[in-house]
Amino acid sequence: MAVGSNNSSYHKVAGVRLSSLACGVKRTGNDLVLIEFAPGSHTAGVFTQSVFAAAPVVVGKAHLKHSSPRYFLINSGNANAGVGDAGIKDAMHCCQALAELADTPVEAVLPFSTGVIGERLPAERIVAALGDALGSLDEDSWIAAARGIMTTDTRPKIASRQFELGGKVVTITGITKGAGMIQPNMATMLSYVATDVAASTQTLQHCLRLAVNKSFNRITVDSDTSTNDSSMLTATGQSGVDIDVGGEKGSGMLGEFQVVLDAVFLELAQGIIRDAEGATKFVAVVVNNGETVKDCLSIAYSIANSPLMKTAIHASDANWGRIVMAIGKAGVALDINKLDIWLGDVCLMQAGQKHEAYTEIQGAAIMAHDEITITIDLHAGSVSETVWTSDLSQEYVRINADYRS
Amino acid sequence: MAVGSNNSSYHKVAGVRLSSLACGVKRTGNDLVLIEFAPGSHTAGVFTQSVFAAAPVVVGKAHLKHSSPRYFLINSGNANAGVGDAGIKDAMHCCQALAELADTPVEAVLPFSTGVIGERLPAERIVAALGDALGSLDEDSWIAAARGIMTTDTRPKIASRQFELGGKVVTITGITKGAGMIQPNMATMLSYVATDVAASTQTLQHCLRLAVNKSFNRITVDSDTSTNDSSMLTATGQSGVDIDVGGEKGSGMLGEFQVVLDAVFLELAQGIIRDAEGATKFVAVVVNNGETVKDCLSIAYSIANSPLMKTAIHASDANWGRIVMAIGKAGVALDINKLDIWLGDVCLMQAGQKHEAYTEIQGAAIMAHDEITITIDLHAGSVSETVWTSDLSQEYVRINADYRS
Repeated sequence: MAVGSNNSSYHKVAGVRLSSLACGVKRTGNDLVLIEFAPGSHTAGVFTQSVFAAAPVVVGKAHLKHSSPRYFLINSGNANAGVGDAGIKDAMHCCQALAELADTPVEAVLPFSTGVIGERLPAERIVAALGDALGSLDEDSWIAAARGIMTTDTRPKIASRQFELGGKVVTITGITKGAGMIQPNMATMLSYVATDVAASTQTLQHCLRLAVNKSFNRITVDSDTSTNDSSMLTATGQSGVDIDVGGEKGSGMLGEFQVVLDAVFLELAQGIIRDAEGATKFVAVVVNNGETVKDCLSIAYSIANSPLMKTAIHASDANWGRIVMAIGKAGVALDINKLDIWLGDVCLMQAGQKHEAYTEIQGAAIMAHDEITITIDLHAGSVSETVWTSDLSQEYVRINADYRS
Repeated sequence: MAVGSNNSSYHKVAGVRLSSLACGVKRTGNDLVLIEFAPGSHTAGVFTQSVFAAAPVVVGKAHLKHSSPRYFLINSGNANAGVGDAGIKDAMHCCQALAELADTPVEAVLPFSTGVIGERLPAERIVAALGDALGSLDEDSWIAAARGIMTTDTRPKIASRQFELGGKVVTITGITKGAGMIQPNMATMLSYVATDVAASTQTLQHCLRLAVNKSFNRITVDSDTSTNDSSMLTATGQSGVDIDVGGEKGSGMLGEFQVVLDAVFLELAQGIIRDAEGATKFVAVVVNNGETVKDCLSIAYSIANSPLMKTAIHASDANWGRIVMAIGKAGVALDINKLDIWLGDVCLMQAGQKHEAYTEIQGAAIMAHDEITITIDLHAGSVSETVWTSDLSQEYVRINADYRS
């Protein structure tokens, strides 16, 4: 039921090799992905804000402080979350086994998990598969890796750009997964983006935060935040283009790089919404001319997360009373007599009153589309924010009522 | 699909008469309810916190400041919200027409509306029916009134108590409606409770706030807050028992009255959850030993509003990983190593670890019930809070995708 077409072409990234195989964490399908970065690579990461952060998040954050990762070890089918200290032991056991086989320090291995919360990770099955995972690493396995990290996703999600920077061709390629339990806070579970530019960890962290704050931190499927959200950005440096050279942050090559990076992140984040559980619609909620980012986001998320709004969208019903309701409950002090509401290019409400030219037929024509933009103009300031979301369908309920059974 | 049995016996309240009829706001069924209070009655009210408060809320709050109401004029089928100044005019037009017919000041009439947002109220249809509404007022029409204010509700909701106070028999009887767009903030749409005790408006407001904060302000169907929420408490004084006499607030007769009032409010609020749109489960989420009310409520609502939690409950799936997820995203700083989680009388998690004796069979046995209690013990303080909610079913989506069509 995914909305819109799916890209599956990509550019490989010099210095990055991947493998994907089935080790038995899930009942069927690939569930173990290994990503290897060449020596000299730098990595930045952002992680879930959940107080119940999963064991791999705890371990990964600690390792990232001590070392530049050489390996990401990712399993799907089990989140290794909510199991107390045993989860840390299981994650460390997998990391240590890989470090020994690959002859690296254990801190150079970052573990990631996605799947059911509250069950022990079958670590021995992962450990037993590590030799094969190392042996099958390959520069061309990006799609296989994108498939291997899927849970309720219906399709792999990849975004890729090649462009000229500093007189050379550089590449950014990334994969992501996620379809439910999606309102990431600082990152989403899971996203891995790699580039062959050279950059310090500090620069990458700066670029990653900027990109995430306009992509993964602006999407919601169901308002639920995962215990495992992680978004990683790695630079291998193998293009020979160093974005730290030649200027302030945000200027020169760094600025050009950021523009393309933002586009890759946005495509990946929107890919999650297009493939959201049970989704039949792809919806952008735009709030213009607010006083603060917080005001704009409160209103945008109030609309994007309202079950009544999402069921109306599912029904292609231009039930704009529910937009009014969602704005009203957002907890933002505003002058409703200044408020405009647009559905696509049709003005529903102007200055707090139903627009005199608006007809239900106009609204219904917009709502019939697969892709819909709802725009709110607050006329209160100069800040704009956009949040992307999906509809709430009976299929969403079916998927999540059946997920464990 | 309502959960649990429904009370329909009640005690009438001296000084209160009601009528219910069809005036054509809805396509079928009664949609106009009039409630009359004898002279000398006092009324307290709490209203929605939505910035898009509906026209009748704006008018009703203003009238309540100037006068003790003699009439509540309530229509279902149209919320008279989101239509700008025209809504105020329409509400005032209905109030003025009734005031003339009944020979009262216009401020003695309080208007209430519930139904579709964003459409003009057909005021003339209401005005044309006011003579009949006045003519058919009756002390025994409580159930008819409870039916007349329904929208997507499947059954009328009434609660009633008769008890001895100050050596005399006094009565509290109330009705409510609501099944979706339910996470009231200070009140829910709509609830009317009357008693024959005597009390000042100030005392009633105090009693109402206490009662609402443990009932209507502790329920959620879908996290959505109506533009029209209103909860009213009226005392006619006709029993001759004055609860303002003989003591401080909360002591003596006032204290006894509050206990029974709380029970009536809780029964009404729980009645909304039992009749929630598409509900097959009635769920209490109890958070014990928190540091603050805010902490307890943040966690309780995070669980009660999580679509993933609600679909798991719908499927009778003891998917406690989703409880952990919802606690994790609540934004409350807590020591997860102290946390206990109970499903009914079965301990799932103790001190942040899965309880060693817990089995899926035990969890499944609890989840199979229609009524489920989820208890979280934070071991951080001494505050406890309870929130009631329903499950999220395909039927909820169907109802709300179809509602306008």
